[in-house]
Amino acid sequence: MRQNALFQLGTGLGTPGTARKEDFAIVSPAKVQAEERDDHFVVRNGVRCAGAHLIVDLYGAERLDDIDHIETALRRAVDAANATLLHIHLHHFEPNGGVSGVAVLAESHISIHTWPENGYAALDVFMCGKADPDACVPVLREAFAPTNIAVSELLRGQGV
Amino acid sequence: MRQNALFQLGTGLGTPGTARKEDFAIVSPAKVQAEERDDHFVVRNGVRCAGAHLIVDLYGAERLDDIDHIETALRRAVDAANATLLHIHLHHFEPNGGVSGVAVLAESHISIHTWPENGYAALDVFMCGKADPDACVPVLREAFAPTNIAVSELLRGQGV
Repeated sequence: MRQNALFQLGTGLGTPGTARKEDFAIVSPAKVQAEERDDHFVVRNGVRCAGAHLIVDLYGAERLDDIDHIETALRRAVDAANATLLHIHLHHFEPNGGVSGVAVLAESHISIHTWPENGYAALDVFMCGKADPDACVPVLREAFAPTNIAVSELLRGQGV
Repeated sequence: MRQNALFQLGTGLGTPGTARKEDFAIVSPAKVQAEERDDHFVVRNGVRCAGAHLIVDLYGAERLDDIDHIETALRRAVDAANATLLHIHLHHFEPNGGVSGVAVLAESHISIHTWPENGYAALDVFMCGKADPDACVPVLREAFAPTNIAVSELLRGQGV
């Protein structure tokens, strides 16, 4: 499967360009062996679970078509949560300028999907271990200046 | 930011190895220009929204440490949903053999995080446009043979 072509492109589209953005690195075996998932189950609000999954909606938000700004915001959110970034990928869509981005973490992931024409962004912040997903919220608020932000929390893997 | 090193490796860890797995492709400008996000708002259960976000929990599941099997399952789920895969990344953790994987789609994303030692996997399936996230569920059921599967649906971006 590793050699499969990745991109399954649409057909019959004649739209303006889109850009793909990705950071990756080849990691030496020695470094790979130093990596570990922080997958300890957590107790959150008295509930033992695999991790806390925040569903975050931004309304009336700004800069949702700025892929560099979005990458910076994701990286800041990862740092604020004291999480460990393993991989980040962002994709810029046309014609609306929307961005889809995912940060894969040692503690799970952050995703963002933006609709700039609506001032709307849908994120989720899933973190296990010692990372603090709540710490991402002020970073997102500062980065995208939403007029309204909604956060709900799912405690995943209860009773496992 | 594009030249930044990606991996922020943990320190002081002496654990067995971990493997990173990723498919990517260099896309020619002509092909890049043929790509477009299917970001139409949808009406689901009578509610207009940016997309349907399924929160999927698998309990008593099998093969949660098999990264090739998990990649195949994700690709099958994408196909079943009639979605378009843009990028896929999976990460294999040690010592527990857990896998974190994300498929970035033209219609949003699928993520999976597994805890093989607990038979537990946390997924989310977020799709906008014409893709059918519900079609992923039987694929996941077949792939991982869970004794129990819980699916809840969030309609993201209502009222936007």
